[in-house]
Amino acid sequence: MIILGIDPGYAIVGWGVLEYKNNRFRVIDYGAIQTRAGTPTPDRLHTIYRELTAIIHKYRPDAMAVEELFFNTNQKTGIIVAEARGVILLSAVQNGVSLYEYTPLQVKQAVVGYGRAEKKQIISMVTMFLNLDAPPKPDDTADALALAICHAHCGGSRLGQYYNK
Amino acid sequence: MIILGIDPGYAIVGWGVLEYKNNRFRVIDYGAIQTRAGTPTPDRLHTIYRELTAIIHKYRPDAMAVEELFFNTNQKTGIIVAEARGVILLSAVQNGVSLYEYTPLQVKQAVVGYGRAEKKQIISMVTMFLNLDAPPKPDDTADALALAICHAHCGGSRLGQYYNK
Repeated sequence: MIILGIDPGYAIVGWGVLEYKNNRFRVIDYGAIQTRAGTPTPDRLHTIYRELTAIIHKYRPDAMAVEELFFNTNQKTGIIVAEARGVILLSAVQNGVSLYEYTPLQVKQAVVGYGRAEKKQIISMVTMFLNLDAPPKPDDTADALALAICHAHCGGSRLGQYYNK
Repeated sequence: MIILGIDPGYAIVGWGVLEYKNNRFRVIDYGAIQTRAGTPTPDRLHTIYRELTAIIHKYRPDAMAVEELFFNTNQKTGIIVAEARGVILLSAVQNGVSLYEYTPLQVKQAVVGYGRAEKKQIISMVTMFLNLDAPPKPDDTADALALAICHAHCGGSRLGQYYNK
């Protein structure tokens, strides 16, 4: 099974592609879609949509694991992140990828073993777990790989499955 | 100038197309994109994107006026509305439509004359102003037409202009 993990954002969207077979992981690729500050929001959404669609076409994932959003302090930022998540979900649907979502708590529990783990711990666990030579950069990439690991381990809330592949 | 007004939502997206020429309005068409409750969010986003894209292809608007989002009581609903707004903005960018956004306050001021107007007043002003036989239904449609009127009258915050038409 090929799993694409996505850490949603609008300045940086972390992504990671893993193969999970016979209880073993193989890292296929990972990286970050970055959009420039000062660029109008619709342009940034377009970049995210276009680049993510290219990633999906290249790796043909069976499932996509996306972080669930919660809003906290910065409402304005929260709205743009949700808009970006909207185009991320759209790209998955259009390409027939099954969608799953996980809370940060679920991801931490799956990867580190407890839900209050810190970001640093997630990064080092992902690095060790996947036998990477160095921690993946930027941090959002480690989060995306953690989401893919979480999906393999726990199978979460399905956002919808699509068969129009 | 052809203006497409959009009242963002995920259950109902109101839309209205007006022509504005020599200080006069002509109603071209209006309606609502509706998505079914209980359908997975990504499917609803896909429906909104697909139907809005068809509307843009049909009427070829010069500008699209979208309501700015603010979050209040229901965070969960707010996130889905923002996700829907993300695919709405994407559709405009992909089709080379200039995007403008307006606050509810700006819309009320432009249409009714003061910013604390109630929904009922907006609906009756839109109905009179555009010489409609009856108030447009659902209410979200009246809001969308109000956004288009607001754009003609005040020219607002540009979200980005696109020339890839």
